[in-house]
Amino acid sequence: MMDNFDILPSFFLGCGAEYDESGIVIFGAPFDGTVTFRPGSRFAPSRMRSESIGLETYSPYQNADLEDFSIFDAGDLDLPFGDTSRALEQIAGISKYIFKAEKRPLMLGGEHLVSLPVIKSAFEKHPDLRVIHFDAHTDLRDEYLGSKLSHANVLRRCWDFLGDGRIFQFGIRSGTRDEFEWADAGHTRLHRYDLCGVDAAAAAIGGAPVYVTIDLDVLDPSIMSGTGTPEAGGASFSELLGAILSLRPLNIVGADIVELAPHYDASGVSTAVACKVMRELLLCMAKR
Amino acid sequence: MMDNFDILPSFFLGCGAEYDESGIVIFGAPFDGTVTFRPGSRFAPSRMRSESIGLETYSPYQNADLEDFSIFDAGDLDLPFGDTSRALEQIAGISKYIFKAEKRPLMLGGEHLVSLPVIKSAFEKHPDLRVIHFDAHTDLRDEYLGSKLSHANVLRRCWDFLGDGRIFQFGIRSGTRDEFEWADAGHTRLHRYDLCGVDAAAAAIGGAPVYVTIDLDVLDPSIMSGTGTPEAGGASFSELLGAILSLRPLNIVGADIVELAPHYDASGVSTAVACKVMRELLLCMAKR
Amino acid sequence: MMDNFDILPSFFLGCGAEYDESGIVIFGAPFDGTVTFRPGSRFAPSRMRSESIGLETYSPYQNADLEDFSIFDAGDLDLPFGDTSRALEQIAGISKYIFKAEKRPLMLGGEHLVSLPVIKSAFEKHPDLRVIHFDAHTDLRDEYLGSKLSHANVLRRCWDFLGDGRIFQFGIRSGTRDEFEWADAGHTRLHRYDLCGVDAAAAAIGGAPVYVTIDLDVLDPSIMSGTGTPEAGGASFSELLGAILSLRPLNIVGADIVELAPHYDASGVSTAVACKVMRELLLCMAKR
Amino acid sequence: MMDNFDILPSFFLGCGAEYDESGIVIFGAPFDGTVTFRPGSRFAPSRMRSESIGLETYSPYQNADLEDFSIFDAGDLDLPFGDTSRALEQIAGISKYIFKAEKRPLMLGGEHLVSLPVIKSAFEKHPDLRVIHFDAHTDLRDEYLGSKLSHANVLRRCWDFLGDGRIFQFGIRSGTRDEFEWADAGHTRLHRYDLCGVDAAAAAIGGAPVYVTIDLDVLDPSIMSGTGTPEAGGASFSELLGAILSLRPLNIVGADIVELAPHYDASGVSTAVACKVMRELLLCMAKR
Amino acid sequence: MMDNFDILPSFFLGCGAEYDESGIVIFGAPFDGTVTFRPGSRFAPSRMRSESIGLETYSPYQNADLEDFSIFDAGDLDLPFGDTSRALEQIAGISKYIFKAEKRPLMLGGEHLVSLPVIKSAFEKHPDLRVIHFDAHTDLRDEYLGSKLSHANVLRRCWDFLGDGRIFQFGIRSGTRDEFEWADAGHTRLHRYDLCGVDAAAAAIGGAPVYVTIDLDVLDPSIMSGTGTPEAGGASFSELLGAILSLRPLNIVGADIVELAPHYDASGVSTAVACKVMRELLLCMAKR
Amino acid sequence: MMDNFDILPSFFLGCGAEYDESGIVIFGAPFDGTVTFRPGSRFAPSRMRSESIGLETYSPYQNADLEDFSIFDAGDLDLPFGDTSRALEQIAGISKYIFKAEKRPLMLGGEHLVSLPVIKSAFEKHPDLRVIHFDAHTDLRDEYLGSKLSHANVLRRCWDFLGDGRIFQFGIRSGTRDEFEWADAGHTRLHRYDLCGVDAAAAAIGGAPVYVTIDLDVLDPSIMSGTGTPEAGGASFSELLGAILSLRPLNIVGADIVELAPHYDASGVSTAVACKVMRELLLCMAKR
Repeated sequence: MMDNFDILPSFFLGCGAEYDESGIVIFGAPFDGTVTFRPGSRFAPSRMRSESIGLETYSPYQNADLEDFSIFDAGDLDLPFGDTSRALEQIAGISKYIFKAEKRPLMLGGEHLVSLPVIKSAFEKHPDLRVIHFDAHTDLRDEYLGSKLSHANVLRRCWDFLGDGRIFQFGIRSGTRDEFEWADAGHTRLHRYDLCGVDAAAAAIGGAPVYVTIDLDVLDPSIMSGTGTPEAGGASFSELLGAILSLRPLNIVGADIVELAPHYDASGVSTAVACKVMRELLLCMAKR
Repeated sequence: MMDNFDILPSFFLGCGAEYDESGIVIFGAPFDGTVTFRPGSRFAPSRMRSESIGLETYSPYQNADLEDFSIFDAGDLDLPFGDTSRALEQIAGISKYIFKAEKRPLMLGGEHLVSLPVIKSAFEKHPDLRVIHFDAHTDLRDEYLGSKLSHANVLRRCWDFLGDGRIFQFGIRSGTRDEFEWADAGHTRLHRYDLCGVDAAAAAIGGAPVYVTIDLDVLDPSIMSGTGTPEAGGASFSELLGAILSLRPLNIVGADIVELAPHYDASGVSTAVACKVMRELLLCMAKR
Repeated sequence: MMDNFDILPSFFLGCGAEYDESGIVIFGAPFDGTVTFRPGSRFAPSRMRSESIGLETYSPYQNADLEDFSIFDAGDLDLPFGDTSRALEQIAGISKYIFKAEKRPLMLGGEHLVSLPVIKSAFEKHPDLRVIHFDAHTDLRDEYLGSKLSHANVLRRCWDFLGDGRIFQFGIRSGTRDEFEWADAGHTRLHRYDLCGVDAAAAAIGGAPVYVTIDLDVLDPSIMSGTGTPEAGGASFSELLGAILSLRPLNIVGADIVELAPHYDASGVSTAVACKVMRELLLCMAKR
Repeated sequence: MMDNFDILPSFFLGCGAEYDESGIVIFGAPFDGTVTFRPGSRFAPSRMRSESIGLETYSPYQNADLEDFSIFDAGDLDLPFGDTSRALEQIAGISKYIFKAEKRPLMLGGEHLVSLPVIKSAFEKHPDLRVIHFDAHTDLRDEYLGSKLSHANVLRRCWDFLGDGRIFQFGIRSGTRDEFEWADAGHTRLHRYDLCGVDAAAAAIGGAPVYVTIDLDVLDPSIMSGTGTPEAGGASFSELLGAILSLRPLNIVGADIVELAPHYDASGVSTAVACKVMRELLLCMAKR
Repeated sequence: MMDNFDILPSFFLGCGAEYDESGIVIFGAPFDGTVTFRPGSRFAPSRMRSESIGLETYSPYQNADLEDFSIFDAGDLDLPFGDTSRALEQIAGISKYIFKAEKRPLMLGGEHLVSLPVIKSAFEKHPDLRVIHFDAHTDLRDEYLGSKLSHANVLRRCWDFLGDGRIFQFGIRSGTRDEFEWADAGHTRLHRYDLCGVDAAAAAIGGAPVYVTIDLDVLDPSIMSGTGTPEAGGASFSELLGAILSLRPLNIVGADIVELAPHYDASGVSTAVACKVMRELLLCMAKR
Repeated sequence: MMDNFDILPSFFLGCGAEYDESGIVIFGAPFDGTVTFRPGSRFAPSRMRSESIGLETYSPYQNADLEDFSIFDAGDLDLPFGDTSRALEQIAGISKYIFKAEKRPLMLGGEHLVSLPVIKSAFEKHPDLRVIHFDAHTDLRDEYLGSKLSHANVLRRCWDFLGDGRIFQFGIRSGTRDEFEWADAGHTRLHRYDLCGVDAAAAAIGGAPVYVTIDLDVLDPSIMSGTGTPEAGGASFSELLGAILSLRPLNIVGADIVELAPHYDASGVSTAVACKVMRELLLCMAKR
C-alpha cells in the first residue's frame, strides 16, 4: 500500500531489515521510574530514532556500514509507569523471546535498572556470562532509599546471580565509600575514572559470552550533558570509541545503551553522540 | 512477528487504521527550503507524532474519539532539500494518489509552500473548490525575492487557478500594503486580525468542497512560539478551536497544518498545541 | 550565631514565622514517581522558594501583605523515589501532625498524587469536607495503566471516601469519555473548560470546611508552560486569581499547589506565576 | 566604497534615513547595572536591530509604512558598567543634543532607570511635560535598598521635577503598599492592572507635550517572558497596541521602550514583540 | 553627525578600518538553503559581530593585537533564499571585486556551499592555489540528493577546477565509503579524525597561495554544539588553534569560517569560540 | 519543632554542622554588579545548594567524605545591588568575623570582585599571605572603564597590599598586552594557558598561609559554559582536580569559587561541576 512513495523510515538509521533475517534486534525500554535526581531517559529511544537521520550509515573507524548487515528495530515497549515490577517483567519477556530465537538484543533505555532483566535473560541463556559495564557510578548499593530495585543498585542485583569476578567496570568515579570497598574486596573488577584496562579485560574474557552495558554518563558531561546525573571527569567520545573497538574480538551476546535524557541538552549533541555510540556498538556486534 | 509484545505506535495518536479501510490519510511533508527568516518546520511532523502520546484520543469539545474512526498515517515523505520543484512534485504525486482513491488527505508541513500541490490536486478533483486559510500573513505576494514559488506567495499561486472570491482568509495581520490592497480589491475574502466571520463564510460556502489550510502562526505567539515568524496579536487556542468547530457542517475534502518549528519552543507547548489542533481537525473531518 | 549579618532567607518569601505562632504551615512534597508523560514536578518546591524573592510580599489585589501574618515554612520532605506507598505515608504523617496542632497545611507538590494523603487527613479531621479542584484533567480514572494510585486517579481516590457531590471541579478539558460521563452521572460537580461557577460553588458550600487543590495545568500553557502535560485552552492568570478571590469567604482548612515542572520553562515565568498563585492563596487563607 | 553590493543594514528595520533629514532619532542605552532580580536588558537594543528583519515595515493597524518617514538610527551608546552616574550623564548628553536639534528621541533600554535622563531632558525642553507610563511596577519607591537612583524609583525621581498629577500610570500590578498609597494620595494618576483609561488620559492631556515610557513588563509574561521581573496578569499585545493607537492625537516629544531581556526567552518571541511595539510606536510618533 | 558620542561599533571587534587602507576585507554570507539536517547558519555572521565585544583584541598566543592592523568589515550580503545560483553569483561578485583590489577576503558563512564562489575566485586570481580544509565531513560527494551544488559536495566542486593533490583535508570523520575511497585514490590529501599533518602540509605548500576554509564542525561538539551536524570525536579548540598557528608562514590569500548555527547553542559558547577562531585566523593572515 | 520528619536540608550537601564546632564556614556573596559582558553569577550560590543533592558526599579521588568533617553553611549575604562599596563592606565584615573566630571561610560568588574583601581580611590576619589564582583572565588592569574596583582588576587590587611575587596565577589566556607585560615584569607569577606549575608553586610556598581563589572560567567552556565570559582553550575538570589535589599539603586559610552564571547553562552541567569543585576544595581544606 502506498509503496510507490519515498517514506522516511521510523526505525533507527540503517536498521530496516526484517525480523526473521536479522541476527540483532533493537528495542527501546522507555522507563525511568526509579530515578532520584533528574528523570527523562524515558524519552531517549524515540528521540534517538528520529535524530539518527543526521548520521551516516558508514563508520570510517570500523570501515563498515550498517547497510552491510541485517538488523531489525522492533520499536519501543509500552511500559507501565509507577509499576517497576511489571515493567521489568515485560522487558524480561521480550529479552527471553529474542534469546530463544538465537538472536541478540540491543536495548535502548531508559534508566539503568532496565538492564537487569536483559542481563538476567542473557545469563539464563549463557550461564558463563561476563558483563562489561561502562558508567560513572558504581551502581553497587545493596539497598538504596530502602529499595533493592533501583538504578543505583542494578549491578549489585546482577552480581547476585553472576557472582564474583564476572563484572568488569570502567570509568567509575562516583559512589559511596562502602561501594568502592565492596567492589575492591574482589566482588567486581572496578576500574576507577577512565577506560584503561578494557584491552586486558577483553583478553581475559577470551571467548566467553559477554554482555555490554553502556551508561552514557560514563562520558564526560562536556560531550554528554543530556543525562540525569552528569559527573565531570569522564571519558571523551574518542576514549569510549576506542574501548568499543577493543571489544570487537569478543562474543557479545547482548548489549544496551542507557541514561540518555535528551531534555537536558537542547543543542541535540547528546542525542547525536548516543546515536554514534549506537552505530559503533552495532557494527562491533554485527561484525562477528 | 513479535506481535505478542506491547509496542508503542509510530503513527499519530489514534490513527493506526489500515490504509484500505481509512477515509482520511495523514502524511508529512518535512520541507522548509524557501523560508527566509527562521527555518525548522521540517522537524514538525516527526515531533508531532512522538509527542502525540501526551494527548487523549477523546475530545470533550466534540464529544468524539479518534478511536471511533479509521484514519491511516502514511508517515513522512523523503523530500530533496535544495530542489523545490522536485519536492513539490512528490507532494503532488501522493496527493493525487489519495484523491484518486476517494480518500481525503491531511498533510503535516513543513513550510506553507507545501500546501500548494495538495490544494492544486484538490482543485483538479473538485473544480468547485473553496479554500479556508488561517494565517498571520497574507501570503499573496506575486513575487518574493524574485521567486514565484515561496512560502510568501502560496495563496497567490492558489488564486492563479482558483480565481476571485474562492479564498477565505482569517487572522491576517502581516503583509505589505500592496498585498492588503490586492486582496481588498476582491481577489480574496481577507479578514484582518481575528477569526470573526468564519461562521458567515461557512454559511456562504454551504455544500461546496472545501480545503482547510492552517498556518499555525495564526495563533498568538503566547501559545505558539514554535514557528518561524511569530506575529503578536493572534488568535487564542480557544478561538481557533471555535473556528474549527464552525467548519463541522462543511464538506472538507482535504486539509493541512503547517509552519510548526518545534526547535523554537523548548517547552514543548507549541508541539502539544499543534497535536491538539490536529485532533480537533481530524475529528471535524471524520465526523461527516 | 552570626546573627549580626543579613542572611537571605531559605523559606518562601514572607513566611519566616516560628512554627508555634503560625496558623498555616507550608511544606513541600517533591515526588513525581507516577507521572507518565513528562516528569519534573519534584523540582518545584525548592525552585519556588529561591525564585520567590522576585515577588513583592504585598498583593494589590487583596490589599494584604504576607508580612501581616504568621506563616511557617517547614521545608521539603525527603521522600523515597520508586516507593509510592512509603512516600504517601510520610505525607500523611506530616499532614495529620499539622491538623492535630489545629494548624492548616499548604503543600507544594510534586505531582497531583501527593494531594491524596493531605485530603485524606483533612477529611479525617473534618468529616464534612468539600474539595475544590482546579485542573485541566479529570483525574477520575478508576485504574490507570493497571494502578489505583497515580496522578491520573487522585480525585477518584478522594471520591472513595468523600462520596458524591463533595468534589467541585473547574477548568476540566481533558480526560476519557468514561471519566466525563462518570462525573456527569452526579459523582462530582465537573465544570468544563473554564472557571465559571466558582462563585456559585462557594455559595453552595457556605461554612463547610474546604480543601483547595490547584493543579497548575488548569492555567493555559501560554502562561504555564512548565508543567508535565500542558493543555491548551486553559484559564488565564487573571481568571485563576478571580477564582481564588471568590474563595475568601470560605473556611479553607488546607490547600495545595501541584504539577509545576520548572525544567520545561527556561524563561522562569512558570515558576514566577506559581509563586504569585501561592501568595494569593496564602493571603486568601490567612485572611480569616 | 563597495556600494555596488547589497549589504544588509545594521539599523532598525526601515530606519535608515540620514540624521539631518530625520525628525525622530533612535538610540540604544544598553545599561542594566541597578537591576536586583534578573539582569540582561543590556542586550536588548542590538538584538532588536538584528531581529527586526523578521518584521514588515507596513502596519495594517495604522495603514502606514516605516518607509514613508525619515527616521535615523544612531546605534547604541557605549556606557560604563558599574558607574551609574556617568552612564546617566552620557544618556542626558545625547538626549539634550537631540532635543536641541528640534528632533524627538526614541530610546531603547536597558533597564528602566535609563529613562530618567531622557525624561529630565524632555522636561527641560518642554516644562509643561506629561508622562505616560506603561509598566507592571509602580517604580515609586523613594529609596530602594538605600539608593535614590535605581530601576525601582525612576518614576519617583521624575515626580521630583514634574510634580503632582503629571504622571499617568497604566497596567500597574506590583509594588509595596506604601507606593500604591502614595500614588493614590494624588501624586500620580495610577491605573491598576489594565490599560483602561488611556483614552481619557489622552483627552485630558490634549495638546500638551507628552513623553511615553513603555516598560515591556506591562505586557503579560505569556507574550513577554523575556524580561527581568515578569508579572502575571498583564496586558495582551492587542491591548497595548490599542493603547498606543489611542496616543496618535497627542504631541509625543519623546519615548522609550525598556526592560526587554532577550536571554530569558530562547524562542525569540519577546524580541519580535518588542520590535512590533517599536514599529507601532514609531508610526504613531511619525504620523504627526 | 553625532560624532561627539561614544557609539558601540557594528563591525567585528577591532575591524573598524576604512576599506581603502585595509588589506583584509571581512564579509558575511548568511545563506543555508541546501542544508539537509539542521539549518540556521544564516544567523552566524550577525551574531558573531554582536558577541565579539566579549573578546579581547589582543591574542597572547600570537602576541598580536587586532588594533595593530587595518581590517575592514563590509557587513553581510543580502542573499536571496531559495535561489542557490543567484546567491552564489552575488558571493562570486564581491569576491572578485576584493581580489581585483589586491585585497584578501575573510568570509563568514553560512553553510559550506558559500565557500565555492570564493575559492573559485581565488583560483582565478591565483591559478596555483592550494586549499586547506578543516571539517568533520568529506564534502566530496559528486551528487547529493540529485544535486551537484550543495554543502555536501563543495570540496568536490573545488576539485573540478583545482585537480588532484591540491586540497588538504583535516579532521575528517564522517562520509560515505565511496567518498573516503575516492579521496584515498589520490584526489585529495585526506587526514582522518585529527589535525595531525598540518605542519607537514604547510611545509609542502611552501610559498604557494593558500585558501583556508574552516568548517567549525571540525571542532568537537563539546566546544562547538552550535552547528548543523555535530560529529563527536573532533578537535579541541587548542588543537585547532595550534593548526592555525602552523599556517602563519604561509601565503594565505583568502579564508572563510562556516557552519556556525548559533540557535543550537543557547549558552553562547559556540559563538564565542567562533569569534576567537576568527581573531586568531585574522591575526595569522594579517601578520604577513 | 517538627523534628520527627525527614526534611531536606537547605545547606550545601554534607555541610550541616553547627557553627561552633566547625573549622570551615561557607557563605555566599551573590553580587555581580560590575560585570560588563554577561551578568548572572548572583544566582550561583543558591543554585549550587539546591543542586548539590545530585552529588555524593564521598570523593574517591581523596578517599574522604564530607560527613567526616564539621562544616557550617551560613547561607547567602543579602547584598545591596548598585552599591559596590557597601556590598564589599558587608563581605569584609563577615570575613573578619570568621577569621577572628579562628575559622576559615569558603565563599561562593558572585563575580570575582567579591574575592577582594575576603583576601584583604585574610591578609590582615596572615600578613605573610600567598594567593593561588585560577582564572582565564589576568584581572590585572589598574583601571577598567574608569573604575579601580571591578571584576577586571581584582587581582591588581590584591597586589596593592600583597606586593610582588605573592600571587600565583594559572590558566591565564585572556587580557590586554599591558596586563601580560606587567605581570611578566615580576609583579605576579603568571602561568599562561594551562595549570602546569601548580606543584612547583606549592613547593615554593611551603608552610606559608595560602588563599585559593577559583574563577570557574579557568575551566574550558566545554565543561563550564555557565559563566559570563567563556574562554576556549581552558583546563579540563581533571586538570583542575589535579591542581586542587596538589594543594593538599598547603596551609589554606581561606578560599572562594566565583563566576558561575547558571542561567547560561540550561543543562545544569556547569552547576554540577561547580558543586564537585566545591566538594574537592572543601575536602582538601578540611583534611588538614
